[in-house]
Amino acid sequence: MKCLIIAAGRGSRLSEKGDSKPLIPILGVPLLERVIRAALEGGANEFLVVTGYRGNDIRDFLNSLEGKLSVPITAIHNGEWEKENGLSVLKAQKYLDEPFLLSMSDHLFDPSIIRDLLNQPLPVNEIILGVDMGNDNPLVDMDDVTKVKIKDGKIIDIDKKLLDFDGFDTGIFCCTPAIFQALVVSEEKNGDTSLSGAIRILAGNGKAGVFDIGNRFWVDVDDASAFARAEKALMSNLRDKASDGPISRWLNRPLSMFISRRLVNTNLSPNQISLLSFSFSLLAAGLFSTRSAFFLFLGGVLAQFASVIDGCDGEVARLKFQASAYGGWLDAVLDRYADAFLLFGLTWYLFGETGKGVVLWIGFLAIIGSFVLSYSADKYDSLMKNQIRLGASLRLGRDVRVFIIFLGAIFNQVYITLIIIAVLMNLEVIRRVLICRKHE
Amino acid sequence: MKCLIIAAGRGSRLSEKGDSKPLIPILGVPLLERVIRAALEGGANEFLVVTGYRGNDIRDFLNSLEGKLSVPITAIHNGEWEKENGLSVLKAQKYLDEPFLLSMSDHLFDPSIIRDLLNQPLPVNEIILGVDMGNDNPLVDMDDVTKVKIKDGKIIDIDKKLLDFDGFDTGIFCCTPAIFQALVVSEEKNGDTSLSGAIRILAGNGKAGVFDIGNRFWVDVDDASAFARAEKALMSNLRDKASDGPISRWLNRPLSMFISRRLVNTNLSPNQISLLSFSFSLLAAGLFSTRSAFFLFLGGVLAQFASVIDGCDGEVARLKFQASAYGGWLDAVLDRYADAFLLFGLTWYLFGETGKGVVLWIGFLAIIGSFVLSYSADKYDSLMKNQIRLGASLRLGRDVRVFIIFLGAIFNQVYITLIIIAVLMNLEVIRRVLICRKHE
Repeated sequence: MKCLIIAAGRGSRLSEKGDSKPLIPILGVPLLERVIRAALEGGANEFLVVTGYRGNDIRDFLNSLEGKLSVPITAIHNGEWEKENGLSVLKAQKYLDEPFLLSMSDHLFDPSIIRDLLNQPLPVNEIILGVDMGNDNPLVDMDDVTKVKIKDGKIIDIDKKLLDFDGFDTGIFCCTPAIFQALVVSEEKNGDTSLSGAIRILAGNGKAGVFDIGNRFWVDVDDASAFARAEKALMSNLRDKASDGPISRWLNRPLSMFISRRLVNTNLSPNQISLLSFSFSLLAAGLFSTRSAFFLFLGGVLAQFASVIDGCDGEVARLKFQASAYGGWLDAVLDRYADAFLLFGLTWYLFGETGKGVVLWIGFLAIIGSFVLSYSADKYDSLMKNQIRLGASLRLGRDVRVFIIFLGAIFNQVYITLIIIAVLMNLEVIRRVLICRKHE
Repeated sequence: MKCLIIAAGRGSRLSEKGDSKPLIPILGVPLLERVIRAALEGGANEFLVVTGYRGNDIRDFLNSLEGKLSVPITAIHNGEWEKENGLSVLKAQKYLDEPFLLSMSDHLFDPSIIRDLLNQPLPVNEIILGVDMGNDNPLVDMDDVTKVKIKDGKIIDIDKKLLDFDGFDTGIFCCTPAIFQALVVSEEKNGDTSLSGAIRILAGNGKAGVFDIGNRFWVDVDDASAFARAEKALMSNLRDKASDGPISRWLNRPLSMFISRRLVNTNLSPNQISLLSFSFSLLAAGLFSTRSAFFLFLGGVLAQFASVIDGCDGEVARLKFQASAYGGWLDAVLDRYADAFLLFGLTWYLFGETGKGVVLWIGFLAIIGSFVLSYSADKYDSLMKNQIRLGASLRLGRDVRVFIIFLGAIFNQVYITLIIIAVLMNLEVIRRVLICRKHE
């Protein structure tokens, strides 16, 4: 399925962020790249991009993106980019003789909208427009959005100035080549070369259908205020990670999101961030093993900070489309080493303080319990996926473990900390064994 | 697909093993249950079993099996079980008006034969017989097997006494109800009420097709010698476990198979065997921590023995159809604890001997390295399944680890043992990280 993207206009209302609007990065990724990646994820597999203002810059960018994504991207130049956007659509006519997707370069959206739109039956010579029927969507700029009036699932009117309307034009279309004839008719009949003009012609013939996108994310990034709203919406997608434990959810995640928002504008890769967090943990374990109470305190703070940074790798990866199976695996492996070093550092500290052999046994049990807890969860997932869910009531994960270490270190209560971790972690493993056995 | 199983005869040639042949356990599982489970795995989902000799015992057994397998099993009694086996087939006529599978209660076979047989096109009013074309199959008793002569993919003659033949009757059929008419005709025309007689009638009309089973496992368990061959064949299926490391393959597996062959006749469940092996490992670790050279030696031997027993749980599970995701998971979790306790036991021994703090660091690195090695392999499998294969050249798994511990303990070389494990395990983790990164 080909996807036509209009990236010809100047977008002067966002000029404070950059001169070429489609190339303005939002959370580290240019607007146009976000649109292409979302459409790709939704099911498009070939792209046509109509350029105009600063077309050379955009074409250079598309060339490198084509290599990065391994998907064909063709740039089409529209010399009349200062006129209405319907002309940009017309420039692509000769490339498109089958149904195709149509999107704007400055509209961000949930990829599943594209997927579902592609599953709609598209009658011959018709188009379908993705419409947001939610009149209370806070991401919509009421003055600027194009409104649509709908009757029996068909558009009957479309205009920015409609007072009586049923929903908003999201700028995401599934078109047949009939759109090109409609553009020509609109110009000849009404002198209107806008895309909305063509839709109005099709609507007049009952040929403009509607797909209700529900309350899924979409936003038209038209000015600085919309840009800020879009950034906020993208960030908030990071918050709902199902596997987050309580400390992650209420303490680490808000802090790591604050940091990730800055990190996306650097060149640090997610794997480099994982290594950074790992280094902080190692350093914290090193501070513990100096056996000085002051460094114990510092180490505790550093360990908790490393745990916060440990959330950033995944966040940056998701924000910048850099998530990979390898990255997730590396992060998990480094976490296991980090946990063990922190606990061994504490054990070494305590052994130096007390000289008691029993401390070594307790430290050993804390390390092995923590390890098997992570191991059993992962092994459990891979073996029994979709068979049983472990009760989520007691989420004893890394976030809780490191937080207990942090508290133990800053309050200099290492003995009780190791005992708590040894008992909690091993008991939770036993609980899992019993739960799984019951459900066998 | 219904499956008809003939379990009516006396099977006197195997009477030394038990009075009711279908109920004679082979490696812990009755013959008839093995046939039903194999057909179930191959795609049958309803069973009709014709009983005769000791029919009540068999019906009681089938009642309990029906509950255990959650699959409908109907017993049909044949009072004339002392006559030819075709009469037993005829008794099932009223239950069968669609194509069905037909098998003997004393023929064991690879379930994939059934699966492939079901995928063959079955013309109206014909039957297809699974035929073993391998004239050198050592599991075949040449004097007793029924031979078939084939032309153009059809049977043209079938008899035990054929001198010129192309293959062997495996006793596995895919039938249409035409088999019942053929049985009647065979009796009326030739006075022959055997199943082979009916096949001969169908063959005469070109209605008896052939499916070549290739060199897959099947065996007619007719006498003590065939019983022994069948046991051997079932055991040898255990040997080719892809994940076996070198110590498993060449040392542990032969020993554990020897033991499993005895364990299948006890009531020990695979999970109980896992716990037994775990207890031996804990006991070995306890012996290490007594800090006596003699107990160190004993502990080493016990640790290696536990590693052997650790193979039995999976073998017994596979031989007795008791494999479960939970069992595999529990075994893996217990193995992680066992490894850690063994290594900590050695560390504690060495620390008592030397009093040096560096020993604790080395022991810690050996524990963490061993742990992350197992963790990274599993996590790797679950994340990247089918994406990359880790090089199998260097299979550093639990079998190798425990064997090194065994050698270190019996030769009282604990220091170097811990160093070797710490270095090997952590280096292998690093190697995996680099390999995965290269393939990212």
